[in-house]
Amino acid sequence: MSEITLGRFFFERLHQLKVDTVFGLPGDFNLALLDKIYEVEGMRWAGNANELNAGYAADGYARVNPNGLSALVSTFGVGELSLTNAIAGSYSEHVGVINLVGVPSSSAQAKQLLLHHTLGNGDFTVFHRMFKNISQTSAFIADINSAPAEIDRCIRDAYVYQRPVYIGLPSNLVDMKVPKSLLDKKIDLSLHPNDPESQTEVIETVEKLISEASNPVILVDACAIRHNCKPEVAKLIEETQFPVFTTPMGKSSVDESNPRFGGVYVGSLSKPEVKESVESADLILSIGALLSDFNTGSFSYGYKTRNIVEFHSDYTKIRQATFPGVQMKEALQKLLTTVKKSINPNYTPVPVPETKLINTPAAPSTPLTQEYLWTKVSSWFREGDIIITETGTSAFGIVQSRFPKNSIGISQVLWGSIGYTVGATCGAAMAAQELDPKRRVILFVGDGSLQLTVQEISTMCKWECNNTYLFVLNNDGYTIERLIHGEKAQYNDIQPWNNLQLLPLFNAKDYETKRISTVGELNDLFADKAFAVPDKIRMVEVMLPTMDAPANLVAQAKLSEKTNAEQ
Amino acid sequence: MSEITLGRFFFERLHQLKVDTVFGLPGDFNLALLDKIYEVEGMRWAGNANELNAGYAADGYARVNPNGLSALVSTFGVGELSLTNAIAGSYSEHVGVINLVGVPSSSAQAKQLLLHHTLGNGDFTVFHRMFKNISQTSAFIADINSAPAEIDRCIRDAYVYQRPVYIGLPSNLVDMKVPKSLLDKKIDLSLHPNDPESQTEVIETVEKLISEASNPVILVDACAIRHNCKPEVAKLIEETQFPVFTTPMGKSSVDESNPRFGGVYVGSLSKPEVKESVESADLILSIGALLSDFNTGSFSYGYKTRNIVEFHSDYTKIRQATFPGVQMKEALQKLLTTVKKSINPNYTPVPVPETKLINTPAAPSTPLTQEYLWTKVSSWFREGDIIITETGTSAFGIVQSRFPKNSIGISQVLWGSIGYTVGATCGAAMAAQELDPKRRVILFVGDGSLQLTVQEISTMCKWECNNTYLFVLNNDGYTIERLIHGEKAQYNDIQPWNNLQLLPLFNAKDYETKRISTVGELNDLFADKAFAVPDKIRMVEVMLPTMDAPANLVAQAKLSEKTNAEQ
Repeated sequence: MSEITLGRFFFERLHQLKVDTVFGLPGDFNLALLDKIYEVEGMRWAGNANELNAGYAADGYARVNPNGLSALVSTFGVGELSLTNAIAGSYSEHVGVINLVGVPSSSAQAKQLLLHHTLGNGDFTVFHRMFKNISQTSAFIADINSAPAEIDRCIRDAYVYQRPVYIGLPSNLVDMKVPKSLLDKKIDLSLHPNDPESQTEVIETVEKLISEASNPVILVDACAIRHNCKPEVAKLIEETQFPVFTTPMGKSSVDESNPRFGGVYVGSLSKPEVKESVESADLILSIGALLSDFNTGSFSYGYKTRNIVEFHSDYTKIRQATFPGVQMKEALQKLLTTVKKSINPNYTPVPVPETKLINTPAAPSTPLTQEYLWTKVSSWFREGDIIITETGTSAFGIVQSRFPKNSIGISQVLWGSIGYTVGATCGAAMAAQELDPKRRVILFVGDGSLQLTVQEISTMCKWECNNTYLFVLNNDGYTIERLIHGEKAQYNDIQPWNNLQLLPLFNAKDYETKRISTVGELNDLFADKAFAVPDKIRMVEVMLPTMDAPANLVAQAKLSEKTNAEQ
Repeated sequence: MSEITLGRFFFERLHQLKVDTVFGLPGDFNLALLDKIYEVEGMRWAGNANELNAGYAADGYARVNPNGLSALVSTFGVGELSLTNAIAGSYSEHVGVINLVGVPSSSAQAKQLLLHHTLGNGDFTVFHRMFKNISQTSAFIADINSAPAEIDRCIRDAYVYQRPVYIGLPSNLVDMKVPKSLLDKKIDLSLHPNDPESQTEVIETVEKLISEASNPVILVDACAIRHNCKPEVAKLIEETQFPVFTTPMGKSSVDESNPRFGGVYVGSLSKPEVKESVESADLILSIGALLSDFNTGSFSYGYKTRNIVEFHSDYTKIRQATFPGVQMKEALQKLLTTVKKSINPNYTPVPVPETKLINTPAAPSTPLTQEYLWTKVSSWFREGDIIITETGTSAFGIVQSRFPKNSIGISQVLWGSIGYTVGATCGAAMAAQELDPKRRVILFVGDGSLQLTVQEISTMCKWECNNTYLFVLNNDGYTIERLIHGEKAQYNDIQPWNNLQLLPLFNAKDYETKRISTVGELNDLFADKAFAVPDKIRMVEVMLPTMDAPANLVAQAKLSEKTNAEQ
């Protein structure tokens, strides 16, 4: 057993990185490869209902996986192209998806055979070329000797850059042998070291700014999560006691039960006290920023200070000076060794805004509103929850909630592909099964978005993801679009479904369904101790008024319509 | 009213070409455009359940539309990328889909705003670049003055080349005005004329070959359908009385009730008498060939003659000589004026093989098999039926059936993306509603493929496509893959669904469901006159043994596995 097949080598590499579920669908150019999954103990083939959903599931899995990685296997042409939307989303949002495609045999490629799943023109590299636009790196493997190194290079880049990578693997190479000893040397996952001189200059300048600041704040965004800097951020808060805020995409990057957490900053769409706190600061330590429109209230940041330090995954910026290659993880670790001493001795921790987490009392028969739901929901969350919110009312509503300790928030604020969360929930739930089956995975999705990817609930049923709660916010169509344009337009309507029939349709084993429409029903549900125990798949259809929406979404929609019409 | 908006101009152009249903989903970069659909009388917005399905629906619609055209509207990034698989399929199989994408405003592009639905890198042309690989032509519109001509150019190319075209339309241009008089001049749909000299040489050479032939055959393939040459083919059969065969992809290109129709030729996978008839011919007139593996029995054509004439949409080939630019429609029309006179006076029409259309009698309780189903089904078809078969057992099984007059066959033999037919059925059914609501649209899809795109049945329910028959062949997983590799492998299993619950889930208005598993139940169903009347949506779940498959699929699968392993 000094040799193993290349196919097995690939899966052993995934297993070493705790990527133990592989998403995708079978196709005739990947079948022989799929055989190899079962040779690696502890690995499983998810077998999704379609490729787009598989891509979303892989993205969701990576956001829960300890290394921020996941894997997909699809087939040439018809399989892989259905992944482009999901992979572009992972690229956009910094998610490390290893995207392997089973392609026709070297011989068929050399002969330019007019195979099925081709464009009929003998071009076997066209799909690879398309994927290069949305991948950090790629390999179209042709030679068994270099294949292991090519696979390792792609996996390393997926980790280091937290972006998708593409591997094309011809069907005839899968069973070829490579030395087993290659597995003994683990893939190098070290980040590129910062240039010491640049880093020293960064640390000194930051410490000088800190020493002069009387009202500094920390603002944490998505890349702090994606590039695994949550521990450094937690330490920075502890050491400095500066008020900390997140962006919408940065939610769950910090412990929101920490008394120094001040809320979510979204520029002009922030709550007034949050806006005031952030914008009146005299120093902003920004970590992992991704300044997209929906993440910034349409670019409405209004800092009064010019003292801004931006820590990024590939550079640091201090005021107007850029330090290329000074990446945040190492820089923050270095800063943490001395930051405490640099704080102005006269600095008194300024108070942080409070978040309203209790609703104004209402009669039980009062119709439920988005405002009531998103205020109430924080009390039901518990430590370790994985909270997933769909682009639409949910992604905006969740901003006003308070997350529990060790929670993971998943929301596609930048890419914003509707339907994403149903697939992502499947992936996150399978990742949670591997880490701790008692962790709850809680989805909030609208009735419109649900329709795009509904069949992935079937995969959750297949794998008995009894840790999932599917809250379907039924507001009769695409409310987010109605707010932007066409409130009464027929194109924002959808065919109504009997959503609570979905779990029996998909042959769920242990399940529970409920429909709620009043304040009383919501309160009862969240007071029910049995409901809180993740021991079955649950779907709750939450009936809400069509044009009811979180206030921040209403404001964002107006800004978006304006941008769309601008010449 | 001497001016109209650019948005309306686009839809008026579609309406002129009888493209009266537009497929797609709303998104904030296309909402203002969608308003314009309702200004054009007789047009409708399909409002699909997801973009991939919308793309499949557009492909199916175009295959029924009299001009071979259809239209899609999606939104930038997240919407359009979900279409890549469908558009590549339309490219591969020669289908004229007009693929319009609503993109961010010119101003947002110029400022490189970090908008949602982008990769976060300010690159607004990346998706357009990806689509260029799978589009005949494209336009990324930036200027209102040239916009109408650009739209017209793309539509013309979709028609002439029968391939998808891409139009990127910024949200701020939709409401800008263009002269209404532009609509008075219709889009030029004339094909490029053949070079007279080349054409004369082609006709003379073909006629010489015909005059010398004693056993010529006509072999008709997909491009004869896609490039609208069915009338010319019918005339050629009538004039010559040569035996005529089709390929699997060419099925429905000729009237199969014509006594000169001899069956389906698939190389070595043909029925022996068909193989013998075609391969012993001393002249083959091949029309619109697309010689892919599944269309040719893995390239196993075994003609004995070297006298082969290939008519294509952009060239003609006679023996080894190529005549670039001599396209088949004009060349065939020219040939038809004189072909009768060129036939060898001694030519006696040779008999054609017969197709077995009656089953060996079996007891009513006999479990149903693929063989019985595909033999029996011909008797239930009737004039005008649109018959859609999914890649898998259905696409192979249908080869042994006999199609009725004026039928349309839809099957994605070359591209072969599973799940395609559910979307295509939605599009075909909506096209049929416009042409003649009494035409039946009959789908055969496997239980595995159905899962990929199931939600498009909801769109059929919304539009009350009561002309549809959905036969779900339930053989417990991906049988076509099991035949190729991994018969018992878990990756070829699927989560079983209660398929007959789908129509009530989707709130179908008038519907009927049935499950059949025996010969007697099938015979009763096809004898039931009420069942044959297309007055509701029907789903019939046909229970079949897991490894039961049409003989031609079993043989093809073996050849495919061999190709995949070849080095």
